[in-house]
Amino acid sequence: MRILMIGDVVGSLGLKTMSVYLPKLNKLYSPDAIVVNGENAAGNGRGIGKAIAREMFELGVHCITLGNHAWGQAEVFDFIDEEQGIVRPANFPVGTPGQGFTVIPTQAGKLTVINLMGRTFMAPLDCPFRKMDEILEQVPTDSCILVDFHAETTSEKQALAWYLDGRVSAVVGTHTHVQTADERILSKGTGYLTDVGMVGPYDGIIGMERSAIIKRFLTQMPVRFSVAKGRCQFNAVLIDIDKQTKKAKHLKRIRIDEDTPLIS
Amino acid sequence: MRILMIGDVVGSLGLKTMSVYLPKLNKLYSPDAIVVNGENAAGNGRGIGKAIAREMFELGVHCITLGNHAWGQAEVFDFIDEEQGIVRPANFPVGTPGQGFTVIPTQAGKLTVINLMGRTFMAPLDCPFRKMDEILEQVPTDSCILVDFHAETTSEKQALAWYLDGRVSAVVGTHTHVQTADERILSKGTGYLTDVGMVGPYDGIIGMERSAIIKRFLTQMPVRFSVAKGRCQFNAVLIDIDKQTKKAKHLKRIRIDEDTPLIS
Amino acid sequence: MRILMIGDVVGSLGLKTMSVYLPKLNKLYSPDAIVVNGENAAGNGRGIGKAIAREMFELGVHCITLGNHAWGQAEVFDFIDEEQGIVRPANFPVGTPGQGFTVIPTQAGKLTVINLMGRTFMAPLDCPFRKMDEILEQVPTDSCILVDFHAETTSEKQALAWYLDGRVSAVVGTHTHVQTADERILSKGTGYLTDVGMVGPYDGIIGMERSAIIKRFLTQMPVRFSVAKGRCQFNAVLIDIDKQTKKAKHLKRIRIDEDTPLIS
Amino acid sequence: MRILMIGDVVGSLGLKTMSVYLPKLNKLYSPDAIVVNGENAAGNGRGIGKAIAREMFELGVHCITLGNHAWGQAEVFDFIDEEQGIVRPANFPVGTPGQGFTVIPTQAGKLTVINLMGRTFMAPLDCPFRKMDEILEQVPTDSCILVDFHAETTSEKQALAWYLDGRVSAVVGTHTHVQTADERILSKGTGYLTDVGMVGPYDGIIGMERSAIIKRFLTQMPVRFSVAKGRCQFNAVLIDIDKQTKKAKHLKRIRIDEDTPLIS
Ligand SMILES: [Fe+2]
Ligand SMILES: [Fe+2]
Ligand SMILES: [Fe+2]
Ligand SMILES: [Fe+2]
Ligand SMILES: [Fe+2]
Ligand SMILES: [Fe+2]
Ligand SMILES: [Fe+2]
Ligand SMILES: [Fe+2]
Repeated sequence: MRILMIGDVVGSLGLKTMSVYLPKLNKLYSPDAIVVNGENAAGNGRGIGKAIAREMFELGVHCITLGNHAWGQAEVFDFIDEEQGIVRPANFPVGTPGQGFTVIPTQAGKLTVINLMGRTFMAPLDCPFRKMDEILEQVPTDSCILVDFHAETTSEKQALAWYLDGRVSAVVGTHTHVQTADERILSKGTGYLTDVGMVGPYDGIIGMERSAIIKRFLTQMPVRFSVAKGRCQFNAVLIDIDKQTKKAKHLKRIRIDEDTPLIS
Repeated sequence: MRILMIGDVVGSLGLKTMSVYLPKLNKLYSPDAIVVNGENAAGNGRGIGKAIAREMFELGVHCITLGNHAWGQAEVFDFIDEEQGIVRPANFPVGTPGQGFTVIPTQAGKLTVINLMGRTFMAPLDCPFRKMDEILEQVPTDSCILVDFHAETTSEKQALAWYLDGRVSAVVGTHTHVQTADERILSKGTGYLTDVGMVGPYDGIIGMERSAIIKRFLTQMPVRFSVAKGRCQFNAVLIDIDKQTKKAKHLKRIRIDEDTPLIS
Repeated sequence: MRILMIGDVVGSLGLKTMSVYLPKLNKLYSPDAIVVNGENAAGNGRGIGKAIAREMFELGVHCITLGNHAWGQAEVFDFIDEEQGIVRPANFPVGTPGQGFTVIPTQAGKLTVINLMGRTFMAPLDCPFRKMDEILEQVPTDSCILVDFHAETTSEKQALAWYLDGRVSAVVGTHTHVQTADERILSKGTGYLTDVGMVGPYDGIIGMERSAIIKRFLTQMPVRFSVAKGRCQFNAVLIDIDKQTKKAKHLKRIRIDEDTPLIS
Repeated sequence: MRILMIGDVVGSLGLKTMSVYLPKLNKLYSPDAIVVNGENAAGNGRGIGKAIAREMFELGVHCITLGNHAWGQAEVFDFIDEEQGIVRPANFPVGTPGQGFTVIPTQAGKLTVINLMGRTFMAPLDCPFRKMDEILEQVPTDSCILVDFHAETTSEKQALAWYLDGRVSAVVGTHTHVQTADERILSKGTGYLTDVGMVGPYDGIIGMERSAIIKRFLTQMPVRFSVAKGRCQFNAVLIDIDKQTKKAKHLKRIRIDEDTPLIS
């Protein structure tokens, strides 16, 4: 099974960028499943609304994952319980709307997508390690398993990946909006990448307009952030999983921007 | 001018790994200056002692930068004030032992190396942005300038880099121990990489023994960390700077491990 | 000199509560100066507007101090530079609008009021300890000195108070909205109280409506906070300072609510 | 039922101070149960060892509660599972040694003591609110219930108290080492005090030697902390509970030091 996992899509520019490259990548790589982190897809970079989610599905996305900005748009509560293709962090408190994982049928078999959030320098959610133990008892045994671990620190991300090594097909990180260069397959077969990176403005600061963020650091005053404009970037990772063993066979990072254009 | 910037060297294994690859990289790339982050070079991964610093210089390192673990070894206070080749974060409080930047003579001209620490999720040091403004007034105008920004978040790293765009030759990040894949040259000529990555154990968690770290996440109990053993990795970045303009011309990431061996 | 220091006034109810008790306390205690923390005085509990500041001054307040919510109301920038009776944390970054301390003439002589913010679990401002050293060189030597240290932790508050012992008349804390019972005079004569407490709703959670705050803790979802309604409380401290030595002679805590009514 | 709840006992001086005042308070107030927070009772202020726990029980303590320093002494693991009179935070991860609550027989009936830890600015433990819901289903219905909520912020402490209002006899806070002046009985009968305060050095910073702590704030360097010496303080609260309703009838704060000596 081949999965195209796309990192945090930021703002309208992010959505537009995705719509430009997805067809090309589909042609180039023919993924069986497309998963995208949509926690910043709303126009202001916080959360996701119904129209945007629908647009993503129409572009061919099979599953949308979320993160700390899951509830950035109030309208999300109107559709998250009905939508089988959206997952929010599974370790949100018991009783939280939405689901933490979902099983997607693909032409290469079942794919379970699990969304999880870290706790270091983030909200005090339920333990992501123990939550994974719980979830793995419910996942169909004939399924490939992809974990989107939305977390801040490299140590928590690596720790979870090693904790799950051999028990899931791949663990990929999101949230920092910067792609890491450490793609690998761990000892027992789990594919790993600390962060997939983002999709959206290339010349912002993690996608947001620069001057406001710099002003915040300089003055420590409250500042209104908005999504940056201009040139764009696309970051993703292609994960090949062995159909028999459900282990990762290969990870290929994808980075597209003016400095590293897509050569197709 | 060509600089080889090497990320956080972790423990004895890190030092040994560096001693293995440095000669090969010297032969391959002939850098004019070698800079290495040494904040984790002590045997226990915290700080750096005199013998290790000396060994690094003997391996050909021109400058050692530090970070939040700067004071991990008490003996550092015995030599940091005398040692012109070591810099600790320049935004430590006024009166702190050691220096925040240094000017290194190379065969390609002067190189000023500045060490700086972020504040997001870290100690409340002096403002790194304002400190840079101060330092840049003292730096020789005929000098290339390399900033090692030891920080946790991608937003603070990108913000500082854009703040300094056109005013320094390059800003590279350290501290997360994971190399990022976003090397680029900003609009006004400053080279940038969010994190260089680490040198040392390949199968640890940011270089440390896995079971202790995982136990800590699972139990929230105090746990003794030690540097991991086994296979190793080497991460660095090669920065080419234009001698006339002092702007960056090219950045090349270097990642060496069993999955991505050095082909020389 | 007798100072009445009133803790964080929260919302319209806080202002009304202050207007009820201030005349009574004036009659009872005849303070020479009235200082009040106004960082939560706006209707929504964030910041302070011009009309409210004016109302406070008309009630007899001599000086308004602020804190982390200093910029909660955008209109504050319209008057903070002109208003001699308002101070914002002195360790905000250089260039911040407003002033960090002010000298108030009273019938018992000069009173310098300094506002300062802690950094533990708060924004990375300039060092409050060093900033005090700086300010104390500028304060008139024939002035009593009151420090409002707006900070989260007891350790940082106690540390600053001991650091300033004998150099200022009193250090009182604000920000936690709960009065502490540890009023005392330190070894060299500085009066100290870890927190003055708040003025406003008695049955809220630090002044805010309970259900929203509890929902936030339970669900970790974003929640809109508003100032609570109903019964009210008034917390302050009365500080007597020796005119000659400028040292504290006595601190008397004032707590007024239905459980501990004002007996006049 | 009358409970004497004593705040964080710090170091040997804390233990000695307790041994001085406990007999006097017993004579004065004749409590039915004595509960003490022992998380800092070891000589270095971190954790508690077997000998000290035994000494406390011999002084008449019925129950020892803990907090973030629960595991400060490695030997605690040797006896915590056997000791019915010690409780550690109940919301530590499932599988943690020790117990989160205990039922103590007193001459005035059963008393259940529950220890709980906050999460704001602390470790990401299980949700203390939900954990209380769980525990309250297991507590004997004919029992008075005392909660020691070891937490940093006033908002989390007040929130939990209001969440439990009418369901437990009293919620008292520990951890800040400073007694608050807000004792009260909430609307539905739960007694509440934000923090009980500490027992031990009076002239330290939250019980620790001042110069090291001030040096830490000034230099941001690692510093070795030790328990302060000299004069001492004793802080506690006396809680009267109605035997029939199990609701609080009265809370009386106790503060003893040279400025506020015990008058017996
Ligand atoms: Fe994101
Ligand atoms: Fe995020
Ligand atoms: Fe490091
Ligand atoms: Fe570091
Ligand atoms: Fe406040
Ligand atoms: Fe505040
Ligand atoms: Fe404590
Ligand atoms: Fe504690």
